[in-house]
Amino acid sequence: MSYNKAPSITAETINPRVKIFSYAPCGEILKHAERLEQEMEENPGSLPFQEIIYCNLGNPQVLGQPPLTFFREVLSLCDNPTLLNRDETCALFSPYSIRRARRIINKIPNKDTGGYTDSQGIKWLRQVVADGITGRDGFPSNADDIFLTDGASSAINLMMQILIRSHEDGILSPLPEYPLYSASIILNGGTMVPYNLTEDNGWGLEIFEVKRCLEEARSAGLTVRAMVVINPGNPTGQVLSITNQEEIVEFCRKEGLVILADEVYQENIYAENKKFNSFKKVARSLGYDENDLSLVSFNSVSMSYGESGRRGGYMEVTGLAADVKYQMCKVASLTICPNIAGQILISLAMDPPKLGDESFELFDDEKEKIRLSFWKRAKTLEKAFSSMEGVSCNKLEGALYLFPRLHLPSAAIRAAESKGVSPDTFYAHRLLDATGIAVVPGSGFHQESGSIHIRCTILPDEGKIASMIPRLCAFHKAFMNEFRGSQQRMHDLRR
Amino acid sequence: MSYNKAPSITAETINPRVKIFSYAPCGEILKHAERLEQEMEENPGSLPFQEIIYCNLGNPQVLGQPPLTFFREVLSLCDNPTLLNRDETCALFSPYSIRRARRIINKIPNKDTGGYTDSQGIKWLRQVVADGITGRDGFPSNADDIFLTDGASSAINLMMQILIRSHEDGILSPLPEYPLYSASIILNGGTMVPYNLTEDNGWGLEIFEVKRCLEEARSAGLTVRAMVVINPGNPTGQVLSITNQEEIVEFCRKEGLVILADEVYQENIYAENKKFNSFKKVARSLGYDENDLSLVSFNSVSMSYGESGRRGGYMEVTGLAADVKYQMCKVASLTICPNIAGQILISLAMDPPKLGDESFELFDDEKEKIRLSFWKRAKTLEKAFSSMEGVSCNKLEGALYLFPRLHLPSAAIRAAESKGVSPDTFYAHRLLDATGIAVVPGSGFHQESGSIHIRCTILPDEGKIASMIPRLCAFHKAFMNEFRGSQQRMHDLRR
Repeated sequence: MSYNKAPSITAETINPRVKIFSYAPCGEILKHAERLEQEMEENPGSLPFQEIIYCNLGNPQVLGQPPLTFFREVLSLCDNPTLLNRDETCALFSPYSIRRARRIINKIPNKDTGGYTDSQGIKWLRQVVADGITGRDGFPSNADDIFLTDGASSAINLMMQILIRSHEDGILSPLPEYPLYSASIILNGGTMVPYNLTEDNGWGLEIFEVKRCLEEARSAGLTVRAMVVINPGNPTGQVLSITNQEEIVEFCRKEGLVILADEVYQENIYAENKKFNSFKKVARSLGYDENDLSLVSFNSVSMSYGESGRRGGYMEVTGLAADVKYQMCKVASLTICPNIAGQILISLAMDPPKLGDESFELFDDEKEKIRLSFWKRAKTLEKAFSSMEGVSCNKLEGALYLFPRLHLPSAAIRAAESKGVSPDTFYAHRLLDATGIAVVPGSGFHQESGSIHIRCTILPDEGKIASMIPRLCAFHKAFMNEFRGSQQRMHDLRR
Repeated sequence: MSYNKAPSITAETINPRVKIFSYAPCGEILKHAERLEQEMEENPGSLPFQEIIYCNLGNPQVLGQPPLTFFREVLSLCDNPTLLNRDETCALFSPYSIRRARRIINKIPNKDTGGYTDSQGIKWLRQVVADGITGRDGFPSNADDIFLTDGASSAINLMMQILIRSHEDGILSPLPEYPLYSASIILNGGTMVPYNLTEDNGWGLEIFEVKRCLEEARSAGLTVRAMVVINPGNPTGQVLSITNQEEIVEFCRKEGLVILADEVYQENIYAENKKFNSFKKVARSLGYDENDLSLVSFNSVSMSYGESGRRGGYMEVTGLAADVKYQMCKVASLTICPNIAGQILISLAMDPPKLGDESFELFDDEKEKIRLSFWKRAKTLEKAFSSMEGVSCNKLEGALYLFPRLHLPSAAIRAAESKGVSPDTFYAHRLLDATGIAVVPGSGFHQESGSIHIRCTILPDEGKIASMIPRLCAFHKAFMNEFRGSQQRMHDLRR
């Protein structure tokens, strides 16, 4: 009797929501790159390149970016506080880092960096983060509004768990998107309400388009609860203007939408005429307070400081009632607390050495060197993409990605179809196989239907980018030649 | 027109599943303890005690347990690998820790302890964990079956996300339970199918009771997918016998249930006649392999090694198909990767210094000292509870908790009712207010209806336990006297 036995756990019988979503930066292209890497190890010289260049994920340190000395010194001391009582420590650590670590240890309850903490994070560290936000924005921030989290992703997931009741709840989210959003919305049983960014307008956010999507969703019976804005943009690299942010604030306030502001690239801004403004600052500057608008801002040490694997982040939650925050704490308490090293790191990021502090010069030097180098790498790669036949490339203003648009010959598109994959996936796999360069197909970010993009990080160091570009260009030229009209038949014959 | 505005986000309009569950160890009693602590700070001397003793959560280091030197030395070096190139380091770190840290750094891709890693965790560290399991069980473990996770809680949540499709899916789970299970099942939209442990039989697990619950659930139309077993038990402190584990394996195999084996207390066993046996070892010893049984085992550094706030854990997943594991990786990739410090820590826990290694003696000494002290504290507290009027206390064999049963006067039960709380909650709050000792009401663990328990950790150090006991006994005596029949009326008059 079948009733007596549970259906066994197969890919067919697991939670169907899990199967629907995809998370492209860690998806097929990465798996394929890893397979190639293993092949290179097992059969050296068997592939036409010497190494895989991982441009698929915003993961600076894996591509050689050194960590900032200040961060690592303080972490190292907090992990092993007995060092603070030893004379020899002064020979190995800067006096500033020693002082900062001592202060943290003294402020953590029981001077303990190994126990569970408050589910929201250690109160004193939250105060440090809040003070950092106050300093950044010029408007007060409150430790009770800060949730320290294991990176921004956990915070975003938590918000979706809170906001989504059923598939009739919608979340406005940009296209192209960072696919964590669609994934998290789907996994939590909600409906993503996408709005398009306008590529021809530097991937700008047009409020009438958002309004159109909201109205369409409402007509379809959805209750739209929140609007995701990613600024600086991923994968688009745009930095919103204040005017645009003001429109968004006005719109969300009027429509009763929570703003979910993904601000994890706030330190990654390169364009000279652009500056980061938090949504909180914009809202407060317009005179709106907690009673006018619900706003959640996400930040982390992953992108701005390259400490991605440390999983340190926070969200600042304003304009949500105390009893909602109580329920958020309850959800946070299910994983008991965010990891302590991550908690310490994000507090350091929000309270770095200041001008006049003895460690300031080194810290600032290391940080600025990276930022300037990012800018150079972006420019170099942008130029290379733009020089390629049929490719137009966005001007990167912030974040870590280029998102060039490809105009491929129709034969290439048919070739992709015949393999049952999208043209961008076809192109990205060909690129990887030919050059070892791993980029993510634009379809992974749900680009506008009919357009073809790839997302490429600017993270390989300058030398590597210089060596990558000729290979990239040569591949593209060969690819275009292969699929150029007259050659199509020859190509078909060769296969 | 109400259609034009989203309902604002209030506790009434958030995801209702969030509101249903509770997680008592971080719940009301903790909040109340924190309020009292703040009051003590603001008005010293205003309360009848000098400090709060947090016996609510298995959180060893917050109660003064020192971290193990080996763990912290290696972590500290991995955070700041430049130390490995400095001569002065030898004066501050043991040569063994330096060697271990160097090996980890050399094995991590790009020698980088700050980047995102594989979503399943760094492959080499997974291999270390797998080798540790192989050594522990005498049966092979495979790195591909290991998911490194931010503590066991994240792993448990991930499994629920995979297994639960709708409220028609049930998960067998013990009562009294560790409330993460019911919380996670509810939050993921499933149905908990509780089975009772038998208090009179040392909180033993009786397979006929589990079978009864399974059949009842199936008759009600549920598809039961998995069975949670916590061994050593939380909050019950029992350690399952091999015979009992064999029954469970046979039962789950026959019924097609995934075993979700919570084995986070595997190093916390004190009873001389008891020994930890993993469910995997038991299953393999019976001759069952991957094809016979699906089994997920959870472990972490939180309990066995007290590094709770570091959020390091793993699950070993066997008997689930590759495409199911692929989907699990996808869910894991939503938070991109577990934190690196936690990944390193759990690998150290599964490959600690061995007899003959120069750091073995210190490591073993520190670890055994803690274990023996736990045993002593458990015995002392057990004796104290058992000596109290109307209290019977379980014999703790493993884990970190006593779960004494209280037989309270009916007047006390009525007093609780009149305040709208359960009798255990009433008792726990009274205890906290009178003594500063924070324990969790048994209802937080969904004790059998009609019974009254509290859960008390054995974590305060021996000195503190010695000073706690007279207060505990005095409180209990006064409480019993207050509510003893003849005094009831006087009490009512006094209020």
